[in-house]
Amino acid sequence: MTTTTYTVQGMTCGHCVSSVKEEVGAVEGVTGVEVDLPTGRVTVTSEGSVPDESVAAAVREAGYEVVPA
Amino acid sequence: MTTTTYTVQGMTCGHCVSSVKEEVGAVEGVTGVEVDLPTGRVTVTSEGSVPDESVAAAVREAGYEVVPA
Repeated sequence: MTTTTYTVQGMTCGHCVSSVKEEVGAVEGVTGVEVDLPTGRVTVTSEGSVPDESVAAAVREAGYEVVPA
Repeated sequence: MTTTTYTVQGMTCGHCVSSVKEEVGAVEGVTGVEVDLPTGRVTVTSEGSVPDESVAAAVREAGYEVVPA
């Protein structure tokens, strides 16, 4: 199991959190997504490793941006 | 046709706007709902008059509050 944390900017409310969870949760290999709204921290759990770009693309699909580490 | 404007606090993004439009739009007699996110102004168009309390209840249902005039 792999856990990776990203910082996402632009989320303002619970609806935003739900959108990010839904899109990132649909990425192949992802088994769990936790979002902390105040910090924008998104913790992704996966089986094996998931490309950062796949997660970033899913975040963009939801309408937000991953802040480069 | 009656047009009434309310101020709603707590909306932060387009998802919030959609939630308010959906709930208020479902109130009996309401024929249109426009929301201006920056100001929180919600303009409700209806056939005949709709009780303010019905609109306020729908706004609460969406998770927000009408600011008393």
